[in-house]
Amino acid sequence: MSGAAHALDEVTPEVVRHIEEALAAGNSTEARTLVEALSATGQASVVEQISEAQRDQLIELLRRDLDPEMLTELDEDVRDDVLEQLDSKDIAAAARELDTDDAVNLIEDLPEEEQREILAELPAEERAEIETALAYPDDSAGRLMQLSLVKVPDSWTVGEVIDYCREATDLPDDVYDIFVVDRVGRLRGSVPLGRMLRTKRPVPIVDLVDPDIPSVQVMTDQAEVAHLFRDKNLVSCPVVDDTRRLLGVIMVDDVVDVIDEEAEEDLLKMAGVGADDMHANMIQTTRRRAWWLAINLVTAVIASLVIGQFEGAIEKIVALAVLMPIVASMGGNAGTQTVTVAVRGLAMGELTAANALRFIIKEAAVGGLNGFIFAILMGGAVFAWYGDWRLGAVIGAAMICNLLAAALAGTFIPLGLQKMGVDPAVSSTVFLTTVTDVIGFLAFLGLATIFLL
Amino acid sequence: MSGAAHALDEVTPEVVRHIEEALAAGNSTEARTLVEALSATGQASVVEQISEAQRDQLIELLRRDLDPEMLTELDEDVRDDVLEQLDSKDIAAAARELDTDDAVNLIEDLPEEEQREILAELPAEERAEIETALAYPDDSAGRLMQLSLVKVPDSWTVGEVIDYCREATDLPDDVYDIFVVDRVGRLRGSVPLGRMLRTKRPVPIVDLVDPDIPSVQVMTDQAEVAHLFRDKNLVSCPVVDDTRRLLGVIMVDDVVDVIDEEAEEDLLKMAGVGADDMHANMIQTTRRRAWWLAINLVTAVIASLVIGQFEGAIEKIVALAVLMPIVASMGGNAGTQTVTVAVRGLAMGELTAANALRFIIKEAAVGGLNGFIFAILMGGAVFAWYGDWRLGAVIGAAMICNLLAAALAGTFIPLGLQKMGVDPAVSSTVFLTTVTDVIGFLAFLGLATIFLL
Repeated sequence: MSGAAHALDEVTPEVVRHIEEALAAGNSTEARTLVEALSATGQASVVEQISEAQRDQLIELLRRDLDPEMLTELDEDVRDDVLEQLDSKDIAAAARELDTDDAVNLIEDLPEEEQREILAELPAEERAEIETALAYPDDSAGRLMQLSLVKVPDSWTVGEVIDYCREATDLPDDVYDIFVVDRVGRLRGSVPLGRMLRTKRPVPIVDLVDPDIPSVQVMTDQAEVAHLFRDKNLVSCPVVDDTRRLLGVIMVDDVVDVIDEEAEEDLLKMAGVGADDMHANMIQTTRRRAWWLAINLVTAVIASLVIGQFEGAIEKIVALAVLMPIVASMGGNAGTQTVTVAVRGLAMGELTAANALRFIIKEAAVGGLNGFIFAILMGGAVFAWYGDWRLGAVIGAAMICNLLAAALAGTFIPLGLQKMGVDPAVSSTVFLTTVTDVIGFLAFLGLATIFLL
Repeated sequence: MSGAAHALDEVTPEVVRHIEEALAAGNSTEARTLVEALSATGQASVVEQISEAQRDQLIELLRRDLDPEMLTELDEDVRDDVLEQLDSKDIAAAARELDTDDAVNLIEDLPEEEQREILAELPAEERAEIETALAYPDDSAGRLMQLSLVKVPDSWTVGEVIDYCREATDLPDDVYDIFVVDRVGRLRGSVPLGRMLRTKRPVPIVDLVDPDIPSVQVMTDQAEVAHLFRDKNLVSCPVVDDTRRLLGVIMVDDVVDVIDEEAEEDLLKMAGVGADDMHANMIQTTRRRAWWLAINLVTAVIASLVIGQFEGAIEKIVALAVLMPIVASMGGNAGTQTVTVAVRGLAMGELTAANALRFIIKEAAVGGLNGFIFAILMGGAVFAWYGDWRLGAVIGAAMICNLLAAALAGTFIPLGLQKMGVDPAVSSTVFLTTVTDVIGFLAFLGLATIFLL
């Protein structure tokens, strides 16, 4: 899930170079020592940075002693690669040491056959937990939650809860909240550990309960879970079924990964590249990007069909060919600004039905105003350049048309796609450039045909 | 800091419409009741979505009863607007109810004069705390930390610490770790509350201490702090001075805001729009975006100067004018893919000196391969279209040149900018389009001049 191993201070280019040299020299002991001195995140960062061949060599070296945490920190493409090299026993050994949510994450993308083999290697209890999690849909809260939490009945006192915590040996260190449930396991609320610690022993635990704490339904989409954490500044959040029975808990660190991924995805999707592009191999990358380029080729061809209609005009005034890309390019840039703000606004829930109209009006006004500014600038420059005020006027008018069109297309396209249930981040820019190219060439060459020929 | 108020379930378009109608009808009581029924985040979302005039009206209504949390949730531009309407007394009243870090966040962008007025209204202790925080640079860990934390001497036993916690009345609910310091206040480590709760009273607290916990220096950049939280999956992190004396603690919820902002900034910067664009008024937006468009205009003019050199060729073969935008546009798109991956890789620390060469080689190979694919596609189409195989060969060759140029420019530009200390997210695309436009037109028109005339 995580990916995004940041170059920690420990993983300097020198460290990576040392490891590469040790591997190249076949000095296994040194390579192992160097890698094992690093944190899990550091190890993941090294595995991502070295070449594929050396990666295979390194994994072979570490094998059974592989730090399971390292696997969870790897970028997806790299992890798939590493998992392919490990057999079911190795992966099961790693899964056993991880929290349920991380173990699920590790094996969820493997073929079902291999999943079964790995699960067969695990102790019954853990197998059952992972199987339960895998039964929830991808990207649901159920996949993100961990099952180990402190759950106490609402009939207990603070003293009883404290004694229970002190006697239970298997509680994780990162317990921040005690969850209180009723007789049938329905969530009544939670008590922060700090609050409980400051309360006298005979007080009923239920008196400390905050009944209004947010909880999420197990089928809730992970993006929504991330929004909830962000909006309410949560550290952990209980997960319940549709009868409000407590099933698990989601911790903030897992959500940070989701937030990270989402923001990264928007950026990458708008450029038509995959989330793992950085680590995919050359053929994968070429194939994925070629699709996007093919779609953009269609756009470019449509634009050139428009130009084709004005061959006669261009033959007579060749300056039109020189100037026409300027109009199209300014429209494309202005439209991209609008689309980016709209896509981000939709993703963050800041652009809604309530303010869409105001947004459209503002964007049209900005487009018109900037159109006017650049019409004067460009019109004046063309007049100075070619000494023809009519040519200047035509390019100015075309500029206004295209920047207005860019503003309208830049708002209506993402809003329309969102309404149709299509992700606006992926396809908005393609449609936008089609509009700004077509309108740019059409307005400029069309006005030129009318007024200059 | 936060911004990004997500449309919570509570803030449906209907709720916003009701509030707008109540305000329009001058029905103050109803408007207040509707707004005050919402959470702080919900209120912020409403304030962001309604028009500026209604926003002023609503703030006027709430004034002294304004939920201080709401102010911290507002997008920066909107918050500046709201703060302008409030006087120092109102703002001081709000600041008093907030944690230090949020209070600092609220007033840090105000003019110094006003800051002084607000601080004068605060109790001495809180004033001192805020003044200390304001003394740290913008975007430093010092601005992000809160001062309230549980700090105990390393000579205490677990029992003494528990008693201390139970007697202290001013401890916040969100205590997750106990920090242990030596006689002169230097950090020795931290103990998770959960671990302490499971330990016998006579055990020295120092035995439970995890001495390797990460800490940050007070002057550390916030982006680095965010990376640390993400890499180590932290919930809180102590802040120390350069002699390792404990100064405060940073909580994960404040860091989520930083991560959010960073990812958003990359996306927006690449399109040349400001982070608050959604909420800036029309004039501000027009001005900010005009700068970006002006820079892009220079790019477009350079490209058209290149075309201008080939007026003779275009006059003879007008098809060149029709086809040339295709070559330039494909280069621009392919280059944007590479730049996006590179910018994101640099920001996440995944693209480093250790793997830069491998990245460049891979991108060049992908560019060459896709160039070849689209050379055949486009060359064939042009042959079919114009029945001239030489024209097809020329556009094919130009396509390969430009996609290769796009791959190289797409890697070298962001790497070079980063090396020069310039943010690659902001200016990479401008330089890139200049390259792909110039090379696109030059290769196509140049080859045409050589082989077709």
